Amino acid sequence: MSFSPLIQQLIDALRILPGVGRKSAQRMALHLLERDRSGGLRLAQALSTAMEGVGYCRQCRTLSENELCQQCADPARDAGLLCIVQSPMDVFAVEQTGYRGRYFVLKGQLSPLDGLGPEAIGIPELLERIDNGAFGEVILATNPTVEGEATAYYIAQLLAPKGLVISRIAHGVPLGGELDLVDGGTLAHALAGRQPVRF
Amino acid sequence: MSFSPLIQQLIDALRILPGVGRKSAQRMALHLLERDRSGGLRLAQALSTAMEGVGYCRQCRTLSENELCQQCADPARDAGLLCIVQSPMDVFAVEQTGYRGRYFVLKGQLSPLDGLGPEAIGIPELLERIDNGAFGEVILATNPTVEGEATAYYIAQLLAPKGLVISRIAHGVPLGGELDLVDGGTLAHALAGRQPVRF
Ligand SMILES: [Zn+2]
Ligand SMILES: [Zn+2]
Repeated sequence: MSFSPLIQQLIDALRILPGVGRKSAQRMALHLLERDRSGGLRLAQALSTAMEGVGYCRQCRTLSENELCQQCADPARDAGLLCIVQSPMDVFAVEQTGYRGRYFVLKGQLSPLDGLGPEAIGIPELLERIDNGAFGEVILATNPTVEGEATAYYIAQLLAPKGLVISRIAHGVPLGGELDLVDGGTLAHALAGRQPVRF
Repeated sequence: MSFSPLIQQLIDALRILPGVGRKSAQRMALHLLERDRSGGLRLAQALSTAMEGVGYCRQCRTLSENELCQQCADPARDAGLLCIVQSPMDVFAVEQTGYRGRYFVLKGQLSPLDGLGPEAIGIPELLERIDNGAFGEVILATNPTVEGEATAYYIAQLLAPKGLVISRIAHGVPLGGELDLVDGGTLAHALAGRQPVRF
């Protein structure tokens, strides 16, 4: 070791960030120390404020420093439409599409091998949310993975008796790619889900 | 925007880190909030401690929270050998080679176009350091770039009257690469600097 203890401590602490290895952490630490100390202090402040101040929205369970998140607090949003996702990042992704209904954020997906059952991912809170709401349609927007599909299927079965429209985001070929680069499973889904061309 | 203000603030603050764009900053912020709040608080603490506590070694001018850095404070190191580099990161790189002499860290390299002359990069302090020391050899380890070469040459001229051995790190082909991937300038240097093979 040849960095001074405070610098080494900073380098070690930076490595908790996802995607940051030893080299990047060194570069980040020296960059801040040599060129942007006020930025480094702002980052320190933003980190401690967020770590201590951000909790979960009591209605949709996304990350928020208020009891109700911005989406839940907005009376202009469609109160009859609920989109179920499995992480706060997915709320952001769905927002980018222009969706303006409501959300419920699961804590991940069902994964029996990791001991994650319905309680662990927040299914009871989801059912409570649905019973307290007035939703006409529930959109299952869990990940298009084996566990995400299983989670969507599990929820669909639970909700079946409630007389709601239950839908799942479509699987298919992503826009803008080349067909021969699309994996076989995706292409099979896209074929099975083919739509009549409208003129 | 659909992240809450504190989360958005954290995402913006993370973007001051070199190499961190919008997407990575979002991933980092949500990772800390969802999985590692104590790590996030440790990082906040390490940042503010380092930004406020780290200064420059008064002898070699590398980053250090003590008046003398670890290298300068170590009496076992060769006091007759001075290696001149242009950033604290380079001290780390040279240390990895097993070098155990002394250092002097310039503030970058001469760059007249950016208004960086001898004073700006710390040449007066370098001369003072050399006059107060008892060096037999000075190694110029500035970057192998046009500006780094010019800086090395400038220093060599200044030191010429002092009766020291003045050396420059060797240019040549990097170890482990393939010769046809080495750029022409490097290969020309390597040819010009060829050494007799010893048996
Ligand atoms: Zn909410
Ligand atoms: Zn020093």
